[in-house]
Amino acid sequence: MEFAEVVRRRRMVRDYDPDRPVPPDVRERLLQHAIRAPSAGFSQGWAFLVLETPEERDRFWTATAPSPTHPGGAPDGWLTRMRRAPLLVVPMSHKADYLERYAEADKGWTDRDESRWPVPYWDVDTGMASLLMLLTAVDEGLAACFFGVPPERLAGFRAAFGVPDGYTPVGCVSVGYAGTEDKRSPSLRRGRRGVGEVVHRGHWEAGIGG
Amino acid sequence: MEFAEVVRRRRMVRDYDPDRPVPPDVRERLLQHAIRAPSAGFSQGWAFLVLETPEERDRFWTATAPSPTHPGGAPDGWLTRMRRAPLLVVPMSHKADYLERYAEADKGWTDRDESRWPVPYWDVDTGMASLLMLLTAVDEGLAACFFGVPPERLAGFRAAFGVPDGYTPVGCVSVGYAGTEDKRSPSLRRGRRGVGEVVHRGHWEAGIGG
Repeated sequence: MEFAEVVRRRRMVRDYDPDRPVPPDVRERLLQHAIRAPSAGFSQGWAFLVLETPEERDRFWTATAPSPTHPGGAPDGWLTRMRRAPLLVVPMSHKADYLERYAEADKGWTDRDESRWPVPYWDVDTGMASLLMLLTAVDEGLAACFFGVPPERLAGFRAAFGVPDGYTPVGCVSVGYAGTEDKRSPSLRRGRRGVGEVVHRGHWEAGIGG
Repeated sequence: MEFAEVVRRRRMVRDYDPDRPVPPDVRERLLQHAIRAPSAGFSQGWAFLVLETPEERDRFWTATAPSPTHPGGAPDGWLTRMRRAPLLVVPMSHKADYLERYAEADKGWTDRDESRWPVPYWDVDTGMASLLMLLTAVDEGLAACFFGVPPERLAGFRAAFGVPDGYTPVGCVSVGYAGTEDKRSPSLRRGRRGVGEVVHRGHWEAGIGG
């Protein structure tokens, strides 16, 4: 599909056809694209947990089941529909790889001081990898959603899958063919902030609406 | 261009043809795509500073000029080539929009407690918007680079452009037609970590190399 068309069509889908698995070649393309995300110093401090069998997916949902305040609406309906996704990929950031990479001779941040980092590129880069999976799903005619793993479920998630402490899920990408009960997020009622609202040209003040 | 081709071709380019500006319609498509990035709760807590005139760009480089330890190699050569970029877009995250959005009735995080957030989605989402600009440049036959603004230059950057304190650059996207003196980042010698190295299937231990 044309790139611009993929960007236009991408949206979060929260219901999936439980009878249509993700074709293995599509799953592999998602992953191949994910690892092409940019990363600071080519650190590539990330890992991806792929869950496909019903048992693996059940374990994920049991470990991370959202609390009643979870974004996405009433947890029962949300969970019921989201659990139909035949594929879950959990992209995880690994800060230690970045601190180690930048302690190398060509960077020289041997003190591994995190205050040197303007933003946590380990999370930002892994987020970019997640976006590449979301876009690839659209390119392949499938649907996807990106949602967070609540901090209070992090320990349970790691225990369920043997994930070492240094790895932090930046979220989870659910993938499948769109279901018929998908509901648009109530958040969309907020409306998209247009270019005129968020772009500043030349200077903060001058640019509004420019 | 086909989506998969755009993903394959994307790489950081650090030299630009100073005589070829970015066509205005391309610049607008970059911005239109940026604001289609996903955002938690559709918060869209971001802003984009667009710098095009020589004076605007000089002001950016003067305010943020990397220290000798800046990633990207010898600052002189790096700066000389990067300054040729005819367009700079500085994507900034605005955390307050996220805390405010999630304090609304449908989310209910009225305490605005940041520890509720598994990762800083304000930075992650704005990073996704940055990636969409990088990919769009490739789609349009141009080149781009994403690089950080050092924390010690943050105050100077804000002062130079009148940016309010709550807005944090997640980096800067330089855009233009590729120059002839582009040098591949030495970081690339590290090699890409393949799917077999970073993907875990079903369980952390079981998945290595799977």
